[in-house]
Amino acid sequence: MSIDRIKQRIFRVIQPSDGYWPSRVFDICIMTLILASVFSVFAETFDLPAHVVSVIERFEVVASILFSVEYVLRVWTSDLLFSDLSPWRARLHFVRSGMALVDLVAILPFWLPMLLPGHLLGLRAIRLVRLLRVLKLNRYMEAMAAIGEVFAKRSRELVASCLFIFLLMLLSSLLMYHAEHATQPDVFRNAFSGLWWAVATLTTVGYGDIYPVTAIGRFLGAIIALLGIGMVAIPTGILSSGFIEHFSHSDKPAPPARCPHCGKEL
Amino acid sequence: MSIDRIKQRIFRVIQPSDGYWPSRVFDICIMTLILASVFSVFAETFDLPAHVVSVIERFEVVASILFSVEYVLRVWTSDLLFSDLSPWRARLHFVRSGMALVDLVAILPFWLPMLLPGHLLGLRAIRLVRLLRVLKLNRYMEAMAAIGEVFAKRSRELVASCLFIFLLMLLSSLLMYHAEHATQPDVFRNAFSGLWWAVATLTTVGYGDIYPVTAIGRFLGAIIALLGIGMVAIPTGILSSGFIEHFSHSDKPAPPARCPHCGKEL
Amino acid sequence: MSIDRIKQRIFRVIQPSDGYWPSRVFDICIMTLILASVFSVFAETFDLPAHVVSVIERFEVVASILFSVEYVLRVWTSDLLFSDLSPWRARLHFVRSGMALVDLVAILPFWLPMLLPGHLLGLRAIRLVRLLRVLKLNRYMEAMAAIGEVFAKRSRELVASCLFIFLLMLLSSLLMYHAEHATQPDVFRNAFSGLWWAVATLTTVGYGDIYPVTAIGRFLGAIIALLGIGMVAIPTGILSSGFIEHFSHSDKPAPPARCPHCGKEL
Amino acid sequence: MSIDRIKQRIFRVIQPSDGYWPSRVFDICIMTLILASVFSVFAETFDLPAHVVSVIERFEVVASILFSVEYVLRVWTSDLLFSDLSPWRARLHFVRSGMALVDLVAILPFWLPMLLPGHLLGLRAIRLVRLLRVLKLNRYMEAMAAIGEVFAKRSRELVASCLFIFLLMLLSSLLMYHAEHATQPDVFRNAFSGLWWAVATLTTVGYGDIYPVTAIGRFLGAIIALLGIGMVAIPTGILSSGFIEHFSHSDKPAPPARCPHCGKEL
Repeated sequence: MSIDRIKQRIFRVIQPSDGYWPSRVFDICIMTLILASVFSVFAETFDLPAHVVSVIERFEVVASILFSVEYVLRVWTSDLLFSDLSPWRARLHFVRSGMALVDLVAILPFWLPMLLPGHLLGLRAIRLVRLLRVLKLNRYMEAMAAIGEVFAKRSRELVASCLFIFLLMLLSSLLMYHAEHATQPDVFRNAFSGLWWAVATLTTVGYGDIYPVTAIGRFLGAIIALLGIGMVAIPTGILSSGFIEHFSHSDKPAPPARCPHCGKEL
Repeated sequence: MSIDRIKQRIFRVIQPSDGYWPSRVFDICIMTLILASVFSVFAETFDLPAHVVSVIERFEVVASILFSVEYVLRVWTSDLLFSDLSPWRARLHFVRSGMALVDLVAILPFWLPMLLPGHLLGLRAIRLVRLLRVLKLNRYMEAMAAIGEVFAKRSRELVASCLFIFLLMLLSSLLMYHAEHATQPDVFRNAFSGLWWAVATLTTVGYGDIYPVTAIGRFLGAIIALLGIGMVAIPTGILSSGFIEHFSHSDKPAPPARCPHCGKEL
Repeated sequence: MSIDRIKQRIFRVIQPSDGYWPSRVFDICIMTLILASVFSVFAETFDLPAHVVSVIERFEVVASILFSVEYVLRVWTSDLLFSDLSPWRARLHFVRSGMALVDLVAILPFWLPMLLPGHLLGLRAIRLVRLLRVLKLNRYMEAMAAIGEVFAKRSRELVASCLFIFLLMLLSSLLMYHAEHATQPDVFRNAFSGLWWAVATLTTVGYGDIYPVTAIGRFLGAIIALLGIGMVAIPTGILSSGFIEHFSHSDKPAPPARCPHCGKEL
Repeated sequence: MSIDRIKQRIFRVIQPSDGYWPSRVFDICIMTLILASVFSVFAETFDLPAHVVSVIERFEVVASILFSVEYVLRVWTSDLLFSDLSPWRARLHFVRSGMALVDLVAILPFWLPMLLPGHLLGLRAIRLVRLLRVLKLNRYMEAMAAIGEVFAKRSRELVASCLFIFLLMLLSSLLMYHAEHATQPDVFRNAFSGLWWAVATLTTVGYGDIYPVTAIGRFLGAIIALLGIGMVAIPTGILSSGFIEHFSHSDKPAPPARCPHCGKEL
């Protein structure tokens, strides 16, 4: 069997299943592996007996190697996916696609442990995203693409409102620090404490670990909290207008190409 | 009196009243029973003297049996409601309707106590929904149906944004666990503590029972809290666009079927 | 001077000023009295020396009597405001208008102290609303009317979503009570504690005085908190669509009454 | 070299760079100075050794003088920017422009230390806004202008809803004070404590430092918290409608001025 035949067979197997039974089996195996891998990422955070931990760790090594092999095979066969491009351009095109990047991020924490501090191991949970491809959730992918398009189309306004929020946060944090530091030196220790307070207030999370107690601080806090309503309202309004425009474009049929009363083409 | 006459009389009585006085009396009785039943569900949670508890329990038994009889009668007479269907298809159609399912859920906790753990007894409160039928709140039912339609029409985008929120939660919980576990081992005990933090933060509830204290944890927390604004803004924007489309369709008359100036049909 | 002349002069004075100087002086006096009265309502809540309290109380008596006289004069002269109605119908029409009701609510706590418990004295703060009339804030009144119209037009959907929120709260409170009562008997004491938790969570306020600690409670709490996003998103979406419809109606000119190409009237 | 030549050269240098290399160098220097200055504002809030503080203070003096010189040069050369106006009108026009006011606010805390209490030193952080000009973020400026236009166009409705929120806050604070003062005299000390509670609740921040514990207080609190949803929903709905209108105007081309099928001008 020539290398080309093998490649085509592998390609057909690793593509989302279209009734071809080895492809279905492959999909189910990958899905199980993904779910088990995400489960193990969560399980690792519990106090487990040493022998369970060692089992999880060995499974993690096997899963990461299998995902890596799958990634290499997908890159190798991607020239069959984009047959109108030259092989290397096809592979570059594939590697830069959204799903391939997710695949890469999902295996990187295994291959680059020295690059990533412990709290980035959580990135392995991104493997969950990969389920989307296997599940052929194309309709949800379309909906996600729609959300992405709305963000892209309104990106300038969203970035502008983020800049505004960012500036408001910096100003709030400094004003609040100067208003409260003297009274609560242990709570508002420095401008970063003020920044943490500003984030909690402007996002309306309000954990309650840090809040103003002086009259001037509460007055400032009240104004900033009320401005926080705007922080939610502005992006919501921008996104609403984006979604309305998006759906009014996609739902309506093309305008009639003929004059409505004489039938002439316009 | 034949069984058919009895059935028709029962049907007329249990249908929402249309001026026929036994139907009105029946409606008032059912409403009183529903309100008393919901009240008793709440009353049960208070520390009451034993004799009051036993009265409530006996009332609960009576009410549940009466509701069950009412349900059976409604199913039995439902072939008169959908007279164009065969009797059994009519009954199946009725049993699967929204209000009949509510009726069923409202009596199930009584008949299936072995199936439901204690904290599902609260399901009896769903009896409140039944007031809607008795009150003939048709206009509100239409409005609820409108809300339901908007959810149905935008379900793909809403599910996609839920998937996004779900993934963001999993990632946040793992990142935050790894960032905070060393400093607050009793608060961020495992990934589920992180998940609970992520829910409280992304929904902007922020109880304050769990929050980051390290610099890296607060930095992550700030970013996740800001993304939480998007969690509210995206579904709001999607629903806004849905409601606008819904009302612009339902408010406007159908487009004129004729040319506006020569009267010819288009 | 006849009674009619006196009445007309009083009417001209108590109407919002139109350049007539006694009307202006009257407006300034009323504004000062309103602000002083609202200020005194707040001042009463501070620990003040006895002689200051007695001054405030005496001022409160004088202010309430003056507002009452003003109210009686406004009712008496309201037949000049609606000159096309018979005097008594005009007065009835005036008494039922929004601003006259505000006037009445603002003086009732003085005349009916026996009817109102202490914590309703705060209703006197409603006098602030009266500033709107004096300030001739007609443009803001129009905007408020626009907001009111949107609420009225979408009232069915808003009531339907309130019913939904109300039911979700009742269900949540019972489920959470049954899930948490055994573990935190002092916090989740009864279904009302559960209701208080449900309000704090669904509105995303989250004071942090009450929250689940068990696994099942946190699972339920997470789901309910996520549904809380919908609680904000649904009414926001409904109101957005209402405002859009309102402004698209009021901003756009009437559609052209002529055929765009032959000039015939349609 | 004449004064006019010098002025024109300075003008070309301080305008955002258009490829002219001294202008580029100037931009990079200003950007560095702005970032260092904002960084030093934050650094000042940390407990630093005395010699570091003195370095920062000296840098602050130098930076403020440089920004002041830059401001004077910009005002001086602004007649070249608006060459169609007389020199002094051009300067007045420039001084009143948004970016020039930001420049002024950024240097005022240095020149007017006697006017500003300590907690207003944070205003120096507004220097960050100045980066926008240097970075030639014109597209974001346009987006910000769009947001500003929407606020301006809907200002009446937004102010009306702010009036409503303000009144609701005053009423809530008094009602809650009277409901809770007797039970929690140290928490709800006076009407201002009530106001602080009302702000935290209506904005859904909910720090948890102050909340009702009595039955009547929780009942009131629940109603006010639910009204708080409206506080977020009303401005969001108003802004959504504003953004939709804005983008539907700016995205669509002008309507065709000719009849679409016979070519006659309408």
